[in-house]
Amino acid sequence: MSDLGAIVDLDCDFDSAIERVTAALQEEGFGVISRIDIDDKFREKLGIEFRRYAILGACNPGLAHKALTAEAQVGLLLPCNVCVEATDAGARVHLVDAENMMASSGLGENLAINELGADAGERLGRVVLSLKA
Amino acid sequence: MSDLGAIVDLDCDFDSAIERVTAALQEEGFGVISRIDIDDKFREKLGIEFRRYAILGACNPGLAHKALTAEAQVGLLLPCNVCVEATDAGARVHLVDAENMMASSGLGENLAINELGADAGERLGRVVLSLKA
Repeated sequence: MSDLGAIVDLDCDFDSAIERVTAALQEEGFGVISRIDIDDKFREKLGIEFRRYAILGACNPGLAHKALTAEAQVGLLLPCNVCVEATDAGARVHLVDAENMMASSGLGENLAINELGADAGERLGRVVLSLKA
Repeated sequence: MSDLGAIVDLDCDFDSAIERVTAALQEEGFGVISRIDIDDKFREKLGIEFRRYAILGACNPGLAHKALTAEAQVGLLLPCNVCVEATDAGARVHLVDAENMMASSGLGENLAINELGADAGERLGRVVLSLKA
């Protein structure tokens, strides 16, 4: 766990990791509303091979609606990123620390944003525990 | 301009604003690699109407490749978000301050990440100037 987020190593392959992460997020009310396979982009745009690496955008619609209603600029911090990358031992998952990101952004003085960030952070913390179980 | 990013008001409609933003990003080497129309999500998932609001993921592949090579966790901060929302007067664009976001993240001590964030930030700064012109 760094300031930026948590890391969980899984002993399954990349695609299975995506499935496990998606299911664990769903348990906490987050849908995966975007997916960028950045290794595909590097191949297309740069002609460079990169390990499989997906950036998933996780969104809890209720929290996102409250946040955007409180502060339009919060869209710059949405959705919550969860990254999955292939490793020699299986897959590594990175989950953003939503509470810290909201609190340390320029929007940290908005109490509603702080509370929503804390709520999202608690949920993602439970996702981390679920993946580690 | 807040800590989080810049705001530009445009006197054109939402769809035209998306086109102008996409073209201005392209001039600085950023492709739009994801788009979330969050108002659609709110309608689908919550049955709530919201003004048109799109979260665009802007990515400069060369910078992103260098950043991910230097630090795998930086995917939590990618792509650079640019949001477009409909307003009574036209459209409002929010552009993330990539330099500040990278510097203030837990990755700020990594010199390469800081430099890449500064490079992305300068480019997005020119996008802001281009939209205001």
